[in-house]
Amino acid sequence: MSTQKCVCSPLQRHRAKFQPVLPAILKKGPAFVKPKFGKATRSVADQAAVKKMFPNTYGLPAVTFVKGSNPVVCKKPVRIGVVLSGGQAPGGHNVIGGLLDGLKKANAKNKLFGFLGGPSGIVENKLIEITPALMQQYRNTGGFDLIQSGRTKIETDEQLAAAKNNLLKNKMDALVVVGGDDSNTNACVIAEYLKQQGVDISVIGVPKTIDGDLKNEHIEASFGFDTATKIYAELVGNIERDMNSARKYWHFVRLMGRSASHITLEVALKTHPNAVLVGEEVLAKKMTLGQVVKNLVALIVKRAKAGKNYGIVLVPEGLIEFIPEMKELIGALNDALADNEAALNKLATPAEKKEFILAKLPKKLADLMRSLPDGIARQLMLDRDPHGNVQVSLIETEKLLVEMIRTELAKLKKAGQYTGKFSAITHFFGYEGRCGVPSTFDATYTYALGYNAAVLALNKCSGYLSSVRKLTRKAQDWEVGGVPLTMMMNMERRKGKEKPVIKKALVELTGKPFKYLVANRVSWAEKDLFVFPGPIQFFGPAEVTDVTTYTLLLEQGKKIN
Amino acid sequence: MSTQKCVCSPLQRHRAKFQPVLPAILKKGPAFVKPKFGKATRSVADQAAVKKMFPNTYGLPAVTFVKGSNPVVCKKPVRIGVVLSGGQAPGGHNVIGGLLDGLKKANAKNKLFGFLGGPSGIVENKLIEITPALMQQYRNTGGFDLIQSGRTKIETDEQLAAAKNNLLKNKMDALVVVGGDDSNTNACVIAEYLKQQGVDISVIGVPKTIDGDLKNEHIEASFGFDTATKIYAELVGNIERDMNSARKYWHFVRLMGRSASHITLEVALKTHPNAVLVGEEVLAKKMTLGQVVKNLVALIVKRAKAGKNYGIVLVPEGLIEFIPEMKELIGALNDALADNEAALNKLATPAEKKEFILAKLPKKLADLMRSLPDGIARQLMLDRDPHGNVQVSLIETEKLLVEMIRTELAKLKKAGQYTGKFSAITHFFGYEGRCGVPSTFDATYTYALGYNAAVLALNKCSGYLSSVRKLTRKAQDWEVGGVPLTMMMNMERRKGKEKPVIKKALVELTGKPFKYLVANRVSWAEKDLFVFPGPIQFFGPAEVTDVTTYTLLLEQGKKIN
Repeated sequence: MSTQKCVCSPLQRHRAKFQPVLPAILKKGPAFVKPKFGKATRSVADQAAVKKMFPNTYGLPAVTFVKGSNPVVCKKPVRIGVVLSGGQAPGGHNVIGGLLDGLKKANAKNKLFGFLGGPSGIVENKLIEITPALMQQYRNTGGFDLIQSGRTKIETDEQLAAAKNNLLKNKMDALVVVGGDDSNTNACVIAEYLKQQGVDISVIGVPKTIDGDLKNEHIEASFGFDTATKIYAELVGNIERDMNSARKYWHFVRLMGRSASHITLEVALKTHPNAVLVGEEVLAKKMTLGQVVKNLVALIVKRAKAGKNYGIVLVPEGLIEFIPEMKELIGALNDALADNEAALNKLATPAEKKEFILAKLPKKLADLMRSLPDGIARQLMLDRDPHGNVQVSLIETEKLLVEMIRTELAKLKKAGQYTGKFSAITHFFGYEGRCGVPSTFDATYTYALGYNAAVLALNKCSGYLSSVRKLTRKAQDWEVGGVPLTMMMNMERRKGKEKPVIKKALVELTGKPFKYLVANRVSWAEKDLFVFPGPIQFFGPAEVTDVTTYTLLLEQGKKIN
Repeated sequence: MSTQKCVCSPLQRHRAKFQPVLPAILKKGPAFVKPKFGKATRSVADQAAVKKMFPNTYGLPAVTFVKGSNPVVCKKPVRIGVVLSGGQAPGGHNVIGGLLDGLKKANAKNKLFGFLGGPSGIVENKLIEITPALMQQYRNTGGFDLIQSGRTKIETDEQLAAAKNNLLKNKMDALVVVGGDDSNTNACVIAEYLKQQGVDISVIGVPKTIDGDLKNEHIEASFGFDTATKIYAELVGNIERDMNSARKYWHFVRLMGRSASHITLEVALKTHPNAVLVGEEVLAKKMTLGQVVKNLVALIVKRAKAGKNYGIVLVPEGLIEFIPEMKELIGALNDALADNEAALNKLATPAEKKEFILAKLPKKLADLMRSLPDGIARQLMLDRDPHGNVQVSLIETEKLLVEMIRTELAKLKKAGQYTGKFSAITHFFGYEGRCGVPSTFDATYTYALGYNAAVLALNKCSGYLSSVRKLTRKAQDWEVGGVPLTMMMNMERRKGKEKPVIKKALVELTGKPFKYLVANRVSWAEKDLFVFPGPIQFFGPAEVTDVTTYTLLLEQGKKIN
């Protein structure tokens, strides 16, 4: 955190003045909303197992805030801690701003503290007070730099005890955890632990992730997805325009989002590229890497016949892991490398190591490994994380595809079946989008999420995710409340153990956004129907500034374009 | 060119309505401005040699347009051709829009034609009429997709004769060439040729290039530089915010601009990164690659001591060629590879080829080659263009630096002089910026450049570059006229021959923009004074939408920040 006066860009100066619209229900402040509790809830699956893990937080009723007199929540001053967990997403600062404003509206003596550097800040008791003056420097800005973030999970007995002690020592009344599916699962673990320990401190989650995979029937969107996809769509649109001017390159664009392909799908809906790979479809069709390549080659050959030696392909970061045989290969490599570490270390050259490992793999996987370009095979062999595992996120899938396509096209050329030219340029967009200035949608949504989290905390709701709904309406008409965290859970195998976790939302192949893609992708492939979204706008016509993701619009039955 | 109705983004729809402000002098149209001719001019250097090459276009007087009655230029309907040459730059479509509007304002019967696919369109007589209806779909858009571009130069006798014949066949009165230094040199060659041939067709240039290296005392800026650098600055600012939130990565960002480092300098002025490499400085100081690496290592070690294992470094695309020893190595490799092609082809492995070539190099260069990371050495050896030359633009300099830094840090760590962590992420930004929606500055500047080119053409000024000046004033106060193309020329060695060319503007180490960097870079390096420009805005406060490049503001003695 820096309180140093900084030189600002003109946009920073003007954006600091933006006041997000609050949902009408919250406008008068926490004293004028009452929680309306629904029926007891159940987890989306594995009810008995989840209930067993969360005896004190399982089955909570959903909460909706409605008009009503509720002055009691404002009487006694409270102290609340907030922590940012996991990767950055545009709007994190506005969650904190909304939280602060909600608290101060209830009682000027309420105090907000930020734990520094993610959940480890709770364990290590590193925190600062978020004063209104400090907050002012960060309103409507991207990044998590106000208090930073981290990836620690509070799981062990020692960590949980330290967290409890530090929350008590700081006389906290509630803890707000801003994070993705894993971080909110962890929030629920902490909520459960505190209840078990008889400690009256509420824990509330806020749904964050640019990946868009923390959503369900109760949570319409995670924040940051709107801004990040708008930034990527701007860049993809610019590249499409360049490609359609130069008409001599195939561009392969890998987009962040390892576990789900929402980002790639959303960017495709906004830009109409010639081809889009959706990991979930590749998995459902049990496609091989060879088939993925073959499909792209067919498109390239078809376009070349029409005189078009150019095009653009969107590739989700997680593609490799959605291809069943590749997932199998990576798993087998992880095992083979671990089992033969000593023997491998004795071999001198990468080529020797490769041959050694190939001999340890089942024939099918060894053949697959042999079919991969040398650079990629080397990455699979050598670039390992501290646990010895293949670093899948470092694999440049877009370059892998280009190399394999080049090989196939050379064969077709030799056979006289292809006479075009194939020049490829590759791109990866990720870090550019995680900390952009939040779009008006994300700035407003996060402010409401934070303000609403304050109301949940003041009403002593623990084990809830802050929920703001009806997001395709105008902000004043949004509905607010809380969704029990356990309601979104199921059991999954993690590191060899069954664990209760919030279910990750993958791209639904029966969902409207994917169906829209399917209905249009044939014409996008052959005709050039590119759309150029341009940069995010903060001023000007509402049609330009306020519209949210096409994914959300389609999911809610709205029209796009 | 596509007349097909396309699906548009909301911003595209709104931007189509934008009407750029014309300089006041042009507002009433070509009938109300008169050319005021200055004294005879001379080329910036090599006057005798340049004059010898351009006997008919050398020494022309500079032109300024002033108020005056000039109805004669509107009497007879004219036909004008326009061609886009070289790489895309935001605003190209608005040059054509301004040209069309200037022509139609003079005489509704005037016609504008676009040659397709760059200068080859003139030689091959491929053209379309740019009607107002067609133009409307492209106003204020990025890209060159209306008529595309190309890199052909019209130089041989056959090409020049074909160009002349096609211009005559189409009854053209003038040709407008939109391009960078090389394309405008070529425009002058065509102008000279037509005069020599007694053909009364004017040739007028328009200064285009995102690289910002076509400027001089008469041309304040080339169009596209403003938009492209704003897009890159948006992305660099986003990455800085991410880095300053995560605080665990060093980001190395390579930016387009091979011949000059203007783009990198401008982006640095807007974002305050921890380190900036300026090719021109590296050359002036005759730095070795090792020294460049050493300086960066020193910064990384220093920041690590302050607990900062993160930072951001900007690297110009052309860095490698500015390092004298690397330029020498590339030249020697080009020769050695060409001289030993047959012998090399007989060798089986890359390692053998490398050893073979190393033996052919002078010891100093062989040692340098050995010091390079394997991947880069391989790129230097194997990735060659059709002429057999090293493809310098494909060398991933940012990765080269990271690998060499990693090696140095490992040595320091072993020696106990470094205890930090070094995790690096690399980026390259280029194609994202060449076809973005033009900024208000570029949209307005290009419209004026095009309109002014129409006035030059109507006044039969041939061999001129369209010139719009006083660009840091409001658009209505800009001055317009024409600069003789020969005035900007000098002789340079190209492919072994002395040729007259427009002098490329490199970053001046005594200029105000670079001096501003020097005065600030020490504090940017150690303190974290990042600025986050955010996306280009088209609506809202003029301070946000209209401000142009910091390079231009500083050059014209204005304040920034």
